[in-house]
Amino acid sequence: TAMSNVGPDAKIFAPYSIFKGKAALSADPRLPTFSKSESGGYKVDRRGVIMLTFWPAIGERKYDWEKRQKFALSATEVGSLISLGSKDSCEFFHDPSMLSSNAGQVRKTLSIKAHADGSGYFISLNVVNNILKTNDRFVVPVTTAEFAVMRAAFTFALPHIMGWDQYTNQLPYQASRS
Amino acid sequence: TAMSNVGPDAKIFAPYSIFKGKAALSADPRLPTFSKSESGGYKVDRRGVIMLTFWPAIGERKYDWEKRQKFALSATEVGSLISLGSKDSCEFFHDPSMLSSNAGQVRKTLSIKAHADGSGYFISLNVVNNILKTNDRFVVPVTTAEFAVMRAAFTFALPHIMGWDQYTNQLPYQASRS
Amino acid sequence: TAMSNVGPDAKIFAPYSIFKGKAALSADPRLPTFSKSESGGYKVDRRGVIMLTFWPAIGERKYDWEKRQKFALSATEVGSLISLGSKDSCEFFHDPSMLSSNAGQVRKTLSIKAHADGSGYFISLNVVNNILKTNDRFVVPVTTAEFAVMRAAFTFALPHIMGWDQYTNQLPYQASRS
Amino acid sequence: TAMSNVGPDAKIFAPYSIFKGKAALSADPRLPTFSKSESGGYKVDRRGVIMLTFWPAIGERKYDWEKRQKFALSATEVGSLISLGSKDSCEFFHDPSMLSSNAGQVRKTLSIKAHADGSGYFISLNVVNNILKTNDRFVVPVTTAEFAVMRAAFTFALPHIMGWDQYTNQLPYQASRS
Repeated sequence: TAMSNVGPDAKIFAPYSIFKGKAALSADPRLPTFSKSESGGYKVDRRGVIMLTFWPAIGERKYDWEKRQKFALSATEVGSLISLGSKDSCEFFHDPSMLSSNAGQVRKTLSIKAHADGSGYFISLNVVNNILKTNDRFVVPVTTAEFAVMRAAFTFALPHIMGWDQYTNQLPYQASRS
Repeated sequence: TAMSNVGPDAKIFAPYSIFKGKAALSADPRLPTFSKSESGGYKVDRRGVIMLTFWPAIGERKYDWEKRQKFALSATEVGSLISLGSKDSCEFFHDPSMLSSNAGQVRKTLSIKAHADGSGYFISLNVVNNILKTNDRFVVPVTTAEFAVMRAAFTFALPHIMGWDQYTNQLPYQASRS
Repeated sequence: TAMSNVGPDAKIFAPYSIFKGKAALSADPRLPTFSKSESGGYKVDRRGVIMLTFWPAIGERKYDWEKRQKFALSATEVGSLISLGSKDSCEFFHDPSMLSSNAGQVRKTLSIKAHADGSGYFISLNVVNNILKTNDRFVVPVTTAEFAVMRAAFTFALPHIMGWDQYTNQLPYQASRS
Repeated sequence: TAMSNVGPDAKIFAPYSIFKGKAALSADPRLPTFSKSESGGYKVDRRGVIMLTFWPAIGERKYDWEKRQKFALSATEVGSLISLGSKDSCEFFHDPSMLSSNAGQVRKTLSIKAHADGSGYFISLNVVNNILKTNDRFVVPVTTAEFAVMRAAFTFALPHIMGWDQYTNQLPYQASRS
């Protein structure tokens, strides 16, 4: 196999994907963008997220990517997920058209519910679209091991989607004593 | 959107901010500076901190940045915060003029108090300034999810404000066998 | 000692090794490879793993590396290991010839069993090879401290074997405001 | 203040230091060195450690650095320390002359003992030197917050003293499909 280097400006696809009976779920981080402020520094322009994508099973080990729905977890929602106890549950509501004229027309609900015996979680996404008159629902059972991967990977990604890695990438400057 | 790279010497603004009814709270890391020692190495000159900034609400979703007060968490205070149990509380006292002729004139108290039901914390800052005859108090209720973000981001930042990332940025030298 | 730099394309050997009475166990991470997708980005081609290697003792402090057997932990199996409680156990089954004509001929079983008193684990590998008519079994008792090293090192390595570090190695692009 | 960059081959001093009534304690990481193997790769030559240094108080806020004693924590001893529960204790024994003709002449004992009320630990070092006929003992009480800093910083440093960061610093190679 010939080898060559992946450049630092390459687009990377390395989602963590879970394929189950009725749907598949994948997660990958999206970094923030920065814009130059008037003072010459850089501030976060678009916040980073962890993007969850759900798509339905349409047969044995076959899934329909065209019917996917997305849910973008904010830093605080990631905080909620990584601090979830083995018996806890949480629920998030998003309106992708918030503050536009279509506000309230599409409603996305992500729910994470612990199994009663603490052996994992159901992660489900419900998307109600009043414009298209559609109602999509995806349920993916996630084992403790799979959730541990998500917890560890999300904890790793969290400072990066917040942009805090950019502070620590700065050069360590020396204060001169002159 | 045109894209260009943020350089390694750019000043970065990526605070984690929480806006609540009576005040807002933001946190961001400040790295240590190093100075050259006589032996030719570099030692920490000014210690790194995590800077907390509080500023008051002055109307619905309006906050007055001019009235902000700061509290710089040391590495050990960060250690206290990240190890706080869901029912625990802690309190830190700072005198920004310590060791100067104004010592004792300004007293800052940061307090983190768990809600009785374990559902989050009150983070409050009290600044008593005997010179200006002012007494500022800010209280920000923080949810478990928001505190989990702070815990994860502060844990990430801790080795960096201590300067330990500089050890690990050093080149891995090879011991030759000659 | 003369010093020179280890280059970024050098092959590194830094396994975490545990030598016990009947066998030795070592662990080291193997990063994923990426291939160029049609859209110009890079996607994971071969998934990363944490490779466990077992080899038998053949005398006092002597071990036979030629008789080693390997077990490649996937991201989800690493998730299972790092979330293991001090009284928990888990077991994984691998068929190295899965989907080939030799499927089912070699069966590898890795088992992690907590000591009854919570003082550590037995990590054992059983390899049954129906072609070679061999049955190899290795048992390595691992203390709580050794398991803590594995847990911390595997948690560190997990985002890297998933390829998530490649997202965060990307340059922070600036969205221009023009 | 003029600023200049700290180079990647600079020697760094950024110990985490705790000054108490009878002694001071500092900790800093020492990275492993690598040597070139015959196969062209690099393997760990000298293992990394976290170096603990103790030195005695000789008056109010005065400490005698000349009387310091060191204890080098291995990866597994670091694993023991970071997994210590709030009521747990542990003890390590080192012989700096092990395998030499002076074996057994110097005996170092590091002990970490939880306070009965879970509010911190006593970290103490005892060095018995039969050649010099000396017996040095240092005891440093460490608060929960200080121990949390050590735990977080040691967990950060652990993969680096093991050399695992060198795996993840390698360039992500692309498998070509030709």
